[in-house]
Amino acid sequence: MVYAVAALMTLNTSAAAEGVTIKARGRSITTAVDTIEILKRRFLGRQLQIKEIKIGTEVMPPREGLRERNVSTIEIIAVKAE
Amino acid sequence: MVYAVAALMTLNTSAAAEGVTIKARGRSITTAVDTIEILKRRFLGRQLQIKEIKIGTEVMPPREGLRERNVSTIEIIAVKAE
Repeated sequence: MVYAVAALMTLNTSAAAEGVTIKARGRSITTAVDTIEILKRRFLGRQLQIKEIKIGTEVMPPREGLRERNVSTIEIIAVKAE
Repeated sequence: MVYAVAALMTLNTSAAAEGVTIKARGRSITTAVDTIEILKRRFLGRQLQIKEIKIGTEVMPPREGLRERNVSTIEIIAVKAE
């Protein structure tokens, strides 16, 4: 909900063409999707348009030991329609 | 990894035009993204093409108590290029 409000404020202040990009990696990917869905259901409805959803992989330094870890990422670009 | 192998088998047996659809909801959304990324990195590389990524919300019956829960969903459609 906090992220959804922050995204809403961004959409209401910035140029509409730019929109808002929400990025997350690992287990937070679910939170990124939740944020967009809350933004749609509670605040903007059909005014919110998903422009693009990209997924990818980021190589992260090892948490312990020597092995690098591959972590999935998501990037959701949304705009507010007039 | 198990899901990635299953998806690979689907892509290798079905008509390429149909591709494979991976759906998940709630915390498993991360697993859906991981599955596609493993499929890309370990098996198919650039042959794997993401056709569409859809996100949405599903209303689930309450786990306990009376309140329904809104759960985010993801649907990733991928095809294997020739």
